[in-house]
Amino acid sequence: MRASAAAPKSLGMKPLQDLYPDDFAHCYGCGRLNADGLHVKSEWHNGEAVARFHPAPQHIALPGFVYGGLIASLIDCHAMATAAAASMEKAGATPGVDPTPRFVTASLQVDYLRPTPLGPELELRARATEVGERKVIVGVMLRANDSDCARGRVVAVRMPAGMAQRDVSRSTDARSIE
Amino acid sequence: MRASAAAPKSLGMKPLQDLYPDDFAHCYGCGRLNADGLHVKSEWHNGEAVARFHPAPQHIALPGFVYGGLIASLIDCHAMATAAAASMEKAGATPGVDPTPRFVTASLQVDYLRPTPLGPELELRARATEVGERKVIVGVMLRANDSDCARGRVVAVRMPAGMAQRDVSRSTDARSIE
Repeated sequence: MRASAAAPKSLGMKPLQDLYPDDFAHCYGCGRLNADGLHVKSEWHNGEAVARFHPAPQHIALPGFVYGGLIASLIDCHAMATAAAASMEKAGATPGVDPTPRFVTASLQVDYLRPTPLGPELELRARATEVGERKVIVGVMLRANDSDCARGRVVAVRMPAGMAQRDVSRSTDARSIE
Repeated sequence: MRASAAAPKSLGMKPLQDLYPDDFAHCYGCGRLNADGLHVKSEWHNGEAVARFHPAPQHIALPGFVYGGLIASLIDCHAMATAAAASMEKAGATPGVDPTPRFVTASLQVDYLRPTPLGPELELRARATEVGERKVIVGVMLRANDSDCARGRVVAVRMPAGMAQRDVSRSTDARSIE
């Protein structure tokens, strides 16, 4: 009997970013409501978040290699989702099913271990290494062609209440936000 | 007598990125030959690099605030230019006049000091804190509305020879590179 080629799917599980509240789903890196954004999607499996991303040709640093700022962006958004999921699990909620709380980045450290080739799909894997009430620390590895290319260490904090007081229509161009 | 409102210009000085060799001017963040890129431009004055950038409406994190991945990208490219300029000065060359050597990022640390408002022009100022033969360490401050918003510490290294061996046409879509 031949197994299906597709990876087993967790029935009913969504990418974590698809469960951000609408008001906070405009992020250029991972917001489903940002028409011009990167749309990073992180899935949660057994305490680990996994995302895959295919850089566009313009996401170039030097010929043949991925732009480091894109790598930092992918690590950032993937880490925020990881922090949220780890925090949810600790509180008894189900990541990928229940609404995802919004975390923001306090600090981002990226070590570029080797030049990341532009062409293959990138894979990001992340785990929370410390889950506090307000602060979560996340470790991320970005790989291409089965090689470790960049390592991230990200400090995430729960979105401060003061960041939720603005109306999107006051600060963004409605044409660029679906 | 009324002084001109414009800042005095250093005659004949160009942004550092405009003096990268053509083969290495495709960077998404700062390459003049990347039609879809951010086009960060850093100018060198008395040991300090200054850049100004106006985020687009889609460069949003949460409503009203700039995306952290964009901030990391601006800090990254501005730091690489700063590293190059400091290295040039040490070698007796003139930043903004002579060709700018290409550095690449070994590590990037960004501390987000406060949410960066989306709307005003951002200002980045950077200085090299250590200038070695191969490695340069750069400190960067990003400000908006005269407030410090993000601080970067970036380790730059001279572009390894192995990164210069690829042809841009093999890895990028020619339509996206002018």
